[in-house]
Amino acid sequence: MSKIKITLPDGSVREYPKGITAGEIAFEIGKRLGEDALIAKINGRLKDLFVPVNEDAALQIITFRDKEGLEVFRHSTAHLLAHAVIELFPDARLTIGPVVEEGFYYDFDIGHHFTPEDLAKIEQRMHEIVKNNYKVERVEQTESEAKHMFKNNPYKIELIEEFHKEKQSISSYKQGDFIDLCRGPHIPNTGKIKAFKLTKIAAAYWRGDQKKQQLQRIYGISFPEKSMLEQHLKLLEEAEKRDHRKLGKELEWFTFFEESPGAPFFYPKGAIIYSTLISFIREEYKKRGYNEVITPLLYEKSLWVASGHWEHFKEHMFTLQSEGKDYGLKPMNCPSHILIYKSKSRSYKDLPLRIADFAPLHRNELSGTLAGLTRVRKMSQDDAHIFIAPKQIEEEISRVLEFMNFIYKKTFDFEYKVELSTRPEKFMGRLEDWEKAEDALKKALDVNKIKYEIKAGEGAFYGPKIDFHIKDALGRSWQLATVQLDFQLPERFDATYIGADNTKHRVIMIHRALLGSIERFIGILVEHYAGKLPLWLSPLQVRILTVADRFEKYASRIKEEFEKNNIRVEVDARTESVGYKVREAQFNKIPLILTVGEKEEKNGVVAVRTLDNKVYFDVKVNELINNILGNIENKKIKFEM
Amino acid sequence: MSKIKITLPDGSVREYPKGITAGEIAFEIGKRLGEDALIAKINGRLKDLFVPVNEDAALQIITFRDKEGLEVFRHSTAHLLAHAVIELFPDARLTIGPVVEEGFYYDFDIGHHFTPEDLAKIEQRMHEIVKNNYKVERVEQTESEAKHMFKNNPYKIELIEEFHKEKQSISSYKQGDFIDLCRGPHIPNTGKIKAFKLTKIAAAYWRGDQKKQQLQRIYGISFPEKSMLEQHLKLLEEAEKRDHRKLGKELEWFTFFEESPGAPFFYPKGAIIYSTLISFIREEYKKRGYNEVITPLLYEKSLWVASGHWEHFKEHMFTLQSEGKDYGLKPMNCPSHILIYKSKSRSYKDLPLRIADFAPLHRNELSGTLAGLTRVRKMSQDDAHIFIAPKQIEEEISRVLEFMNFIYKKTFDFEYKVELSTRPEKFMGRLEDWEKAEDALKKALDVNKIKYEIKAGEGAFYGPKIDFHIKDALGRSWQLATVQLDFQLPERFDATYIGADNTKHRVIMIHRALLGSIERFIGILVEHYAGKLPLWLSPLQVRILTVADRFEKYASRIKEEFEKNNIRVEVDARTESVGYKVREAQFNKIPLILTVGEKEEKNGVVAVRTLDNKVYFDVKVNELINNILGNIENKKIKFEM
Repeated sequence: MSKIKITLPDGSVREYPKGITAGEIAFEIGKRLGEDALIAKINGRLKDLFVPVNEDAALQIITFRDKEGLEVFRHSTAHLLAHAVIELFPDARLTIGPVVEEGFYYDFDIGHHFTPEDLAKIEQRMHEIVKNNYKVERVEQTESEAKHMFKNNPYKIELIEEFHKEKQSISSYKQGDFIDLCRGPHIPNTGKIKAFKLTKIAAAYWRGDQKKQQLQRIYGISFPEKSMLEQHLKLLEEAEKRDHRKLGKELEWFTFFEESPGAPFFYPKGAIIYSTLISFIREEYKKRGYNEVITPLLYEKSLWVASGHWEHFKEHMFTLQSEGKDYGLKPMNCPSHILIYKSKSRSYKDLPLRIADFAPLHRNELSGTLAGLTRVRKMSQDDAHIFIAPKQIEEEISRVLEFMNFIYKKTFDFEYKVELSTRPEKFMGRLEDWEKAEDALKKALDVNKIKYEIKAGEGAFYGPKIDFHIKDALGRSWQLATVQLDFQLPERFDATYIGADNTKHRVIMIHRALLGSIERFIGILVEHYAGKLPLWLSPLQVRILTVADRFEKYASRIKEEFEKNNIRVEVDARTESVGYKVREAQFNKIPLILTVGEKEEKNGVVAVRTLDNKVYFDVKVNELINNILGNIENKKIKFEM
Repeated sequence: MSKIKITLPDGSVREYPKGITAGEIAFEIGKRLGEDALIAKINGRLKDLFVPVNEDAALQIITFRDKEGLEVFRHSTAHLLAHAVIELFPDARLTIGPVVEEGFYYDFDIGHHFTPEDLAKIEQRMHEIVKNNYKVERVEQTESEAKHMFKNNPYKIELIEEFHKEKQSISSYKQGDFIDLCRGPHIPNTGKIKAFKLTKIAAAYWRGDQKKQQLQRIYGISFPEKSMLEQHLKLLEEAEKRDHRKLGKELEWFTFFEESPGAPFFYPKGAIIYSTLISFIREEYKKRGYNEVITPLLYEKSLWVASGHWEHFKEHMFTLQSEGKDYGLKPMNCPSHILIYKSKSRSYKDLPLRIADFAPLHRNELSGTLAGLTRVRKMSQDDAHIFIAPKQIEEEISRVLEFMNFIYKKTFDFEYKVELSTRPEKFMGRLEDWEKAEDALKKALDVNKIKYEIKAGEGAFYGPKIDFHIKDALGRSWQLATVQLDFQLPERFDATYIGADNTKHRVIMIHRALLGSIERFIGILVEHYAGKLPLWLSPLQVRILTVADRFEKYASRIKEEFEKNNIRVEVDARTESVGYKVREAQFNKIPLILTVGEKEEKNGVVAVRTLDNKVYFDVKVNELINNILGNIENKKIKFEM
């Protein structure tokens, strides 16, 4: 029997008999890996485990811990779902069942609206199919064979014709009596799907097109272990409790009205959070040499044509007409800032020129995609454009990174992950300039001791960029800050500066937003802190509760002291029990709940309760005020006494 | 000869022979009045002075000091202009020549573009006609007589037909050989027009309609005395120097780009003025119980239909479509605040509820009417809507008036004039409620010791209002703050509160803006102060000039001290002469210009020069900083040492 050489990811090379399957190799390497194996990557391509290996190859065993493994696992669960549905509803027609961020779904053409009772039955049947532990097999077919097999399903016929046109091979996957058209790969048997849950029923359309057949969509999630599903459901439950849309309404911080889809209303308390964030950024701008401008929102088409937005972004813009001319509400600030840059002749001595703007931006997102503060039609960004000479890339990016770290790490104590996206295949400008720019970005990251992952070839065609993903308290990742180098817009607008050599040079632009959209950032903060914002950001900082009516005067006197120090305070002097008032203040997420009664008035003190339920008795008002001011000044996340 | 009784404005009654003219009565009263008389008001109607009075009547002699007198005087000057033009250009066809705010104009249909040389010739001929002191006479005609007389002038024919249709009497006015169709009245002779100037040539269209005949317009201004014209021209010159559009560009405070007509760009320095004004108002809001909200800009048509804007204001709105629905950019905040008001059930205990908003507003003004910051398409107002119970009108209006006085008198030291506009003929609601509301407004004005003029019947149909007109340094009047009671919007939106009686009541709204549009207010401030803004508002507060290079270090050290105290400061260490640097700082309207040299460094002091050119030597830096902080804190208009 002849041998083949298999190179593993750690670089080691092992010999196996020719024709061994990837699944067998996994068991050869180790029992645990063999059991966890879902698919294999052979010479960089994903394959089913049952595929025999007949030549020397590089091989990686893929498990649920790998992104590709997770996706195949979920996609196999979508097949499992379709399998169960077909058994229960033989007239249903299968369409597609892809993986999505929150799990997977499958769309069915079925003369029936699925009910929660249906879901329970389907789940039950899925469990039975798992128990049967069907082997999953791949069937390759010609176009006409496949068309024959799926002759009763116009959706599959449409897909088969497409695959054929694109000269793709046509394959299906079979488990028990169930077969579905599919590119694969799949997990080797249904028994691996140890834990799953169907989560949602929704209406959908074939190809997402409202003019086409309406379908019934079932969403689900799955895991190779029960404990993982349990943990996930717990997380979902916690996430639901923290849902910023829910908390925003409960706390009267912000809401939405149908008259203005995707555009939040910030109630007075929410407006305080909003303005406090902007003031915070403004203060930092002062220290860092940024210049804030105030700019129009509506611009004539010619500007959007010049910037390229009219060609590439128009469908995301709100456009209108006035006096026979076309206008667009700005979705981004860049063109406004280029107008300002170009309003006078600039010298190398003027650079870097940092122009900041909190202008409201509008994006005509599909109403179906809007989601609370995290996906809106109207927002403001802590946006700035920095105009620099090519030599200044490293120095300026380094400053931006320091600023970013100051906000995410030092102020909000978020963990973050950084990605550097480099030159794509199609790029503008000279290779040499790109290489210099990428080197400068890397140096700036190193100087700031920031670890980063390189996303090779994922930069925009007009420049490399650095992205920041923060991790919130539930472990969810959010993309926030972006730092984008741009060689293109200065070219399009012919933006230059006069160099020390007295000749014109093309300027480079940096697009940067640190919080990103203020709206989205507030949404994330609310969920991250479950509404318990740090004192400095909290709309109301202190509530003073009276133990009985007669202490209202004392409470008011203390309130004035707080107000003199610009602390946001109110008194609850209602004739309710202290317990009731404390619970309400906790529900309202008031960081510091003070109670005053006989003893407190006599001694000129207060009792303090934090949102962590730490209680401090007999605190002198002056000391507390100093403490609070210190906590605010230092932007403490948890109140420290 | 029979006598008639003439009642004069002071109530006195005099007897004159029947048939005496108003002009003769003026001379009977006094020689000066006789000479100043332009027209007469007989029984409340304006008449020519040469009209004989044949019955008992109330009579008032009108001079240039009266608004009606000024208008007739200027209109007679328009006739004088037309007279001169016809003599010089016999083929010109006369159209109309009305009075406007800045003087008068006359539009001519003439196959010729007027040149500045033409204007000089026309002025010359006007002087000759004045010297001839033609008597001005009124000619009454039937329609056909008039049409015959003006048979060569299609414009006049059109006007005659209109007058006839409206059953107006048809009259012309004649001076020398010149005759023009006119309702009158006019001044009695051309000799009274002692001083005039033709100021501008412009293109115009018959009836202002671009599809009709193009005309040539000549603007002019006139006065009964030369000194008045001279004073006026001086004022214009000063106004031109102070023109905020000119200063805005020179000082790099704000500008406009053609890509966004009517929407100002505030450069970093202008943005400081803008934000400082908003911070100032915000601080006052805190003290006065206003709650700021942040609201969307784009709303679906249904909201504008409900508010009445779609019917009455649509042509002034920017409207657009998204997903097949109509939207409008908000021109006002009221509907947004009503949505907020209605978002929960309100009790009488919640009132007054004061909702403030600085949201950008958009109005689709005709591009031809846009004028710098004073007439824009995009602006923010220091806007608030106060929801009150009917009983609270007086108390709440009184608070608003106190706030208004605080801003205009105490902060900016403007003189202002107040007008109370009362119930018009057509009004909504009950007479009784109007009377109570008007009484409450009057009481509130009295309580605040504010003098006011009543504009009877000039209120909106939905409520009475109070307007404030300030006077700027050049004596020009600007309408700024408005306080409007509104019974209607709460009706349209069914906005209510639960009273102490536990039943629903209709709430009342107050619309109020004190600065009005921030943009317009900045424009007015710039002109009022000729760019020399009070220290607290000034974008840059201090510039430190070095006498020679070697003092740069000392200058930087001082600069840091200022910065620590949040004073906006910069150093000019260029190797230019101090004189040059001082002149530039003055041109840049820097309130405090500091110079540092040998002596200053040695003694740790600075020399201070204010924009009034007061100079203080050997000022200790600490003392100066305290001084500056005091001036800022107290919002001093002129720097006080």
